[in-house]
Amino acid sequence: MAVVSGIRDLGAHVGETVTLRGWVQTTRTHGKVAFVVLRDGTGIVQGVVLQKEVGPDVWERFGALTLETSIELRGTVREERRAPGGYEIGVQDLRILGPSHDYPIQPKEHGPDFLLDHRHLWLRSSQQRAIMLVRNEVEKAIVDFFYDRGFVRVDTPILTGAVGEGGAGLFEVDYFDDKAYLAQTGQLYGEAAAAALGKIYTFGPTFRAEKSKTRRHLTEFWMVEPEMAWYDSNDNMRLQEELVSYLVGRALERCKNELEYLGRDISRLEKVTPPFPRLEYGDAVALLQQHGSEIQWGTDLGAPDETILGSIYEKPVFVMNYPKQAKAFYMKENPADPRTVLCDDLIAPEGFGEIIGGSQREDDLDRLVARIQEQGLPLEAYGWYLDLRRYGTFVHSGFGLGVERTVAWITGRPHIRETIPFPRMLYRLYP
Amino acid sequence: MAVVSGIRDLGAHVGETVTLRGWVQTTRTHGKVAFVVLRDGTGIVQGVVLQKEVGPDVWERFGALTLETSIELRGTVREERRAPGGYEIGVQDLRILGPSHDYPIQPKEHGPDFLLDHRHLWLRSSQQRAIMLVRNEVEKAIVDFFYDRGFVRVDTPILTGAVGEGGAGLFEVDYFDDKAYLAQTGQLYGEAAAAALGKIYTFGPTFRAEKSKTRRHLTEFWMVEPEMAWYDSNDNMRLQEELVSYLVGRALERCKNELEYLGRDISRLEKVTPPFPRLEYGDAVALLQQHGSEIQWGTDLGAPDETILGSIYEKPVFVMNYPKQAKAFYMKENPADPRTVLCDDLIAPEGFGEIIGGSQREDDLDRLVARIQEQGLPLEAYGWYLDLRRYGTFVHSGFGLGVERTVAWITGRPHIRETIPFPRMLYRLYP
Repeated sequence: MAVVSGIRDLGAHVGETVTLRGWVQTTRTHGKVAFVVLRDGTGIVQGVVLQKEVGPDVWERFGALTLETSIELRGTVREERRAPGGYEIGVQDLRILGPSHDYPIQPKEHGPDFLLDHRHLWLRSSQQRAIMLVRNEVEKAIVDFFYDRGFVRVDTPILTGAVGEGGAGLFEVDYFDDKAYLAQTGQLYGEAAAAALGKIYTFGPTFRAEKSKTRRHLTEFWMVEPEMAWYDSNDNMRLQEELVSYLVGRALERCKNELEYLGRDISRLEKVTPPFPRLEYGDAVALLQQHGSEIQWGTDLGAPDETILGSIYEKPVFVMNYPKQAKAFYMKENPADPRTVLCDDLIAPEGFGEIIGGSQREDDLDRLVARIQEQGLPLEAYGWYLDLRRYGTFVHSGFGLGVERTVAWITGRPHIRETIPFPRMLYRLYP
Repeated sequence: MAVVSGIRDLGAHVGETVTLRGWVQTTRTHGKVAFVVLRDGTGIVQGVVLQKEVGPDVWERFGALTLETSIELRGTVREERRAPGGYEIGVQDLRILGPSHDYPIQPKEHGPDFLLDHRHLWLRSSQQRAIMLVRNEVEKAIVDFFYDRGFVRVDTPILTGAVGEGGAGLFEVDYFDDKAYLAQTGQLYGEAAAAALGKIYTFGPTFRAEKSKTRRHLTEFWMVEPEMAWYDSNDNMRLQEELVSYLVGRALERCKNELEYLGRDISRLEKVTPPFPRLEYGDAVALLQQHGSEIQWGTDLGAPDETILGSIYEKPVFVMNYPKQAKAFYMKENPADPRTVLCDDLIAPEGFGEIIGGSQREDDLDRLVARIQEQGLPLEAYGWYLDLRRYGTFVHSGFGLGVERTVAWITGRPHIRETIPFPRMLYRLYP
């Protein structure tokens, strides 16, 4: 009897008798023929049970199967074009490993709170598994992209005494007799590492203690933050469009089944190739006003503005060089217009909003000190960060790409809470 | 004039004039010949300045160069076997981009506290960069290993209401009007995901609020934690030895220069191939007692015990099936000896100690509840975790590999604080 590593490999075992273990996804009976759909993590397969071919005990055991019972199933692998995955099992034997009574998630509508309360089980559903497989592919593609280009991965700290982009929205931690804060970004540390290693990237969780309850906010989310010595803002945007196109391409190449299962319009994703359109902030404001937005020069784009831009362009669009007062202190003053800074936000199409924020960093010590003071931030907290401008300052740029927002766009999910295994939100720490 | 992407690529530009930007690592002068070693993150290269071939202004600028000044250097690429990297630059022009006065880290002995206070600059030193490059390779190898074997990456939450292995050693976070705790492990969440996706792994930071001040403890460290449906303890150990051998092999294959620079005895690493020796806990205790340890049956191994084992075996060694009272509540009772549980620790050779802890998980609901109560843990905190045994329970196993301890062993560093970019310890949150 063949030992198969999983349902995924059945194609190599046609005609053989195999043993599979997994969970019951559905069952149905047609008189003397019964069907079970089995999930084992590598795929799903249909088992067909003929009453006349199995003993009465197997037939009875089949009758007792409930959703998410774990079973061991022995039978012959057959090609069957109409079955999900293209193969089916002619069942000879069936053993119940773990019963499942009153499984909370039934094939009917459940409210989002109920599903989130049962996230540890909800992950077993086909849609959620498909999203997780796309996330897996996107994350591996991120790591491959940077490694293949000579970037060094740098894991920056979560526990930090410094204050990132500002004091608001920080989670406070009791750190022995001291206080620490959960990192909102690894960028400042990434800048230090770029002076040592040239091109680096961070990849890890970041935290925002924001009381926002939108479908685009999590309190804990994953970011990839590359930082490149000797890159200016233009180089930075080129890398961003290359990365985003690569991630979409990998999902299309290796997760087509999942995207189709999720009902994603794949033709929209196929348009995501470099270069992406670029709009100066001032031009973006004028365009948005023409389309009915109330945005005024000087403020950041709102979610409705991002939706408008996302409906005008088929590709992600850069909005670049925002007014100083709308952006963080570390962004480099724009020599062409000192009211603005050298930065960009990348807005995904179809209303999926901002997925990247990037900038060239202020490399002039005096100007950086002035910006910190202008924004009323505590200069002493940035001692080591200022050192990077004291000892061999250098042109450098970087950006942060939000993993959940990117996966939400690629999979076409309106809520980013479905794109992370266990979402953390304002009123949600469980499970 | 050729634009090169970095020092790493000089080999393709021999005979050409190139422009490089980077930091001054060392300078020296021999009469009318001067040398500068430049670092740009992709490598280091020596520039040679002949007084008679450059203008007096370039010669003077050269004289003003100090450690970590950032410069732009123009010149011709030449092969030079004696130079680091095999090439050198015949300098024609030199421009100072960012001065560096009184750089804190000078080529002399500095104490560890001083260096850790200047970690943002210390990372620029050759040893620290070499360690970071090995870490980068090990981390990429981890991700490749699991992806190539069909494991799905699952990012488990850092902010959690549940209590992992127990209430001690947890960092507490103000979570709006609630309290959260920083995850000590992603395992429990990984188990839920394994029921959905079969074979999964987590890869992220974990936290222990332990007041230990040893060279093997950090309060924040990275772990990879695979969890496999249908794996028993034996399958689990096979995967561990395969993973560890793969990581060492990748470091040997792609970081030989770095390991040699760090003075690592590479012949020791070349011995790390499967299978690894396995010792039952009871046999390990007897062996340790023969070697002078005071360990008694029932307690966990101490650091000196790990050192003894690491000196007896040339390969990492498994110690398996520990007494229940020495291990966490979720480990499966050993059918062959119910005083013990089905688990393993993997001890690295040469005194580098434990790098993996793994176990088969208790899949029986009643026994798991009893273990939680025996250990005085609050049953209500494990509601969703118990659901995994209520709805289709399944044989499963997993383990956690500590990234810093593994990198410390591979690079031969006695202190794990040098194996993470910005270490967090009992009295260290800065920089």
